[in-house]
Amino acid sequence: MNFKMMGRFIAQIITIEAVFMLPALGISLFGGEENAAIGFGYSIAIILLLAAVLYALCRKAGQIFGAREGLVCVALGWVCLSILGSLPFVISGEIPDFVDALFETTSGFTTTGASILRDVEALPDGLLYWRSFSHWLGGMGVLVFLLAIAPAGGDEKGFTMHLLRAESPGPEVGKLVPKMRQTALILYVIYVVLTILNVIFLLCGGMSFLEALCTAFGTAGTGGFGIKNDSIASYSPYIQWVTTVFMFIFGINFSCFYLLLMRRFRAVFRDEELRLYIGLAVGCVVLITLNILHGMDGAYETLEETVRHAAFQVSSIMTTTGFCTTDFDLWPAFSKGLLMMLMVVGACAGSTGGGMKCARVLLLFKNLRRNIRQVLNPRTVQVIRNNGKVVDEKVIANTTAYLAAYVVIIVVSYLAISLDGFSIGTNLSAVLACFNNIGPGMEAVGPTCNFADYSVWSKLVLSLCMLAGRLEIFPILALFSRSTWKRR
Amino acid sequence: MNFKMMGRFIAQIITIEAVFMLPALGISLFGGEENAAIGFGYSIAIILLLAAVLYALCRKAGQIFGAREGLVCVALGWVCLSILGSLPFVISGEIPDFVDALFETTSGFTTTGASILRDVEALPDGLLYWRSFSHWLGGMGVLVFLLAIAPAGGDEKGFTMHLLRAESPGPEVGKLVPKMRQTALILYVIYVVLTILNVIFLLCGGMSFLEALCTAFGTAGTGGFGIKNDSIASYSPYIQWVTTVFMFIFGINFSCFYLLLMRRFRAVFRDEELRLYIGLAVGCVVLITLNILHGMDGAYETLEETVRHAAFQVSSIMTTTGFCTTDFDLWPAFSKGLLMMLMVVGACAGSTGGGMKCARVLLLFKNLRRNIRQVLNPRTVQVIRNNGKVVDEKVIANTTAYLAAYVVIIVVSYLAISLDGFSIGTNLSAVLACFNNIGPGMEAVGPTCNFADYSVWSKLVLSLCMLAGRLEIFPILALFSRSTWKRR
Repeated sequence: MNFKMMGRFIAQIITIEAVFMLPALGISLFGGEENAAIGFGYSIAIILLLAAVLYALCRKAGQIFGAREGLVCVALGWVCLSILGSLPFVISGEIPDFVDALFETTSGFTTTGASILRDVEALPDGLLYWRSFSHWLGGMGVLVFLLAIAPAGGDEKGFTMHLLRAESPGPEVGKLVPKMRQTALILYVIYVVLTILNVIFLLCGGMSFLEALCTAFGTAGTGGFGIKNDSIASYSPYIQWVTTVFMFIFGINFSCFYLLLMRRFRAVFRDEELRLYIGLAVGCVVLITLNILHGMDGAYETLEETVRHAAFQVSSIMTTTGFCTTDFDLWPAFSKGLLMMLMVVGACAGSTGGGMKCARVLLLFKNLRRNIRQVLNPRTVQVIRNNGKVVDEKVIANTTAYLAAYVVIIVVSYLAISLDGFSIGTNLSAVLACFNNIGPGMEAVGPTCNFADYSVWSKLVLSLCMLAGRLEIFPILALFSRSTWKRR
Repeated sequence: MNFKMMGRFIAQIITIEAVFMLPALGISLFGGEENAAIGFGYSIAIILLLAAVLYALCRKAGQIFGAREGLVCVALGWVCLSILGSLPFVISGEIPDFVDALFETTSGFTTTGASILRDVEALPDGLLYWRSFSHWLGGMGVLVFLLAIAPAGGDEKGFTMHLLRAESPGPEVGKLVPKMRQTALILYVIYVVLTILNVIFLLCGGMSFLEALCTAFGTAGTGGFGIKNDSIASYSPYIQWVTTVFMFIFGINFSCFYLLLMRRFRAVFRDEELRLYIGLAVGCVVLITLNILHGMDGAYETLEETVRHAAFQVSSIMTTTGFCTTDFDLWPAFSKGLLMMLMVVGACAGSTGGGMKCARVLLLFKNLRRNIRQVLNPRTVQVIRNNGKVVDEKVIANTTAYLAAYVVIIVVSYLAISLDGFSIGTNLSAVLACFNNIGPGMEAVGPTCNFADYSVWSKLVLSLCMLAGRLEIFPILALFSRSTWKRR
């Protein structure tokens, strides 16, 4: 295990975190929020000191950096990010309990958006900004950011691939261009441009700059922390529609945007994952609209309002953002069932969204179909194709193992938090909402409620769920595997 | 597709069903239950007529009989069994609604034990016997029975293997002896002997002969239809303990009993699946006992009573029987969570129990562990061993596909029955209880309630779930696959 190199990486990651706290410090100072400013000031100092010590200790690092190191580095990096990112909340006294602050920050970086705050609007602007910004940074990934800005060195081939593979969502890591560093840079440029577009559209709807910025951060990272207690419900229909569309856009595989820029329209429109993503979303909006019209007649005044709420919630849950415009826990059971299914499916691979990813669902279905055919005709051997290309059997084996790990984590986490005695629906949706990085669940953790009533133990379990979900399980499982720590 | 051979098989299956209705007819006549007697009389006549017609139509059958035919034959055979087995309920007028009767009969043959009857005790003895007997026949499988009693022909090799593979539970079909027919015979002999033992133990507890027979049928098939409205709750602690032990025994892989008879004790005690099965059961009994003592103090008078209820429910749910001695829906959330986990895990492969089977869970965990290791050390290639023997990669691929199919069916069925508007906990546990062939679920389908309030649509969906669960998904999926019906 190359501990020194990992130490250096983690030092870099937390330095980036400290640098990104500066704007939040500025907002706090500018707004005269003394406690928040003190919180950020001390946090930045502590983090930089830690980074310096870590860097000094790990100066002489070897060159060998394999898959093990990549996984552990990503997992530990994210744990450090979450722990240190919660310092401003604790030091400022706004969230005095450390576990609560950790839950909130983990929820931020993993773009979950589950909150323990009963009154979001009481937070100072600086902390609101930091909370939403954590979504933005966590959405595309802090290691991807590190790669995008780092100077190209001679050690290109080894670790960048392993790091990206461990942090990027989806069954396969797609390179847009031959070099990984350039891929990371292109991803971040697209991400920044789309975020700026989102801010402009929100500003046109009459939001203040800070509101627009925070909402766009939550949308772009598919996070879902709102800056109002009722999330997006009190904003105008225009802003709700804008957010619906942008959430949906940020749930699309970013390589599609790159292909669009390269004018390869046909490749985009033929993309099987994109088709599934759009088809599922449209289908669910139609079904939920019909279900609401039929099952809870008169809940909303106009058809536009019904469709708007259905589209907003579908887009929000499917992209695993977690904003809401209405209390969908009051919807009929079938609509809630569809939303829970979308929680599991999630957005596209290579987007900022969470969940199992449409690409994996597609692969699992194709593999199932192949298996049925093979049971029927034992002698045939078939390959699985995606967009016309044969999928490597290793990717398929990984995807089926992913599903197994997914089920195991859901069951174990459910059991762990059921010690608190909430109902089946509450516990199940809490686990699904945290593990798939959505935010609100159903019943006692529904859109009008929050996670404050869970015990310290459950909050820690759910925080780990969020990390496992964001990093797609294996980095976190690797932390607990004996063969990670074995000498060779 | 060899339709004629399939037709002949189905004719044989339903003839067996008619023959097995004779004792029920006898009980009805002996007890002076006129309606029930008429019901059985007409049913037997109708079934035999149908069988004769089918046999006449399919006299000249070809010899080719492959995996496709095996799967479809098993699936259609079980559908016919369920439909025709519900005739006595409908004709006698005891369950006048056909869908209700179908649900009840499917629940019987698939050894689920979910009921739509609000007052079981009002049923005539003949029908009570038939209802419980369907558990016994369904438990070991009607095709296995057919193979056990059929005269050995020259066509041994082809279809017996395909039929057994489609009907037997577990990831691999184990042959006890080289010949399949003999294997089937040995299985049934063990089954009959154990059932008789169970009856004797129950008789010693003061049950009447019919009561003991029906309870033993429900236990042996891991079915769970009770003959009292409160299931086993009003029986003595002795009978509850006897039933706990026998349920557990019938959840063990029958090849273990054969090995015991062959005095190969070491092979039994080293069996990994058996160890997992016992370990899980003991662990859950301990945890649930502690949870009840801690979480609902004073619910039961003595420690013996608490342990008895915990052990009974764990044994009942894990073996997917579904008897109960207490309303476990009132237990703390953690205990209910453990029970729901046991619902999914289920009993051992090669037993009469349902669920995913311990053997599959073991394989899935081993495969997951292998995958984590391979992600950590991409260059290594590892095999999976079970009881020291290398497991064929085809079996692993089948198991992972099974998990995917399992998840898909749970999600789709959940959505389908959520149209009725019940709570998340009710719907989820109803699907789990039916698909894993358990019987009672939680909340509105808990042990003190029943499935009567679900709509006709939901009852049909749940009936299909039971069949899919009993036949381990693939035969039922094969019915819906295009490549089953394609000409070659």
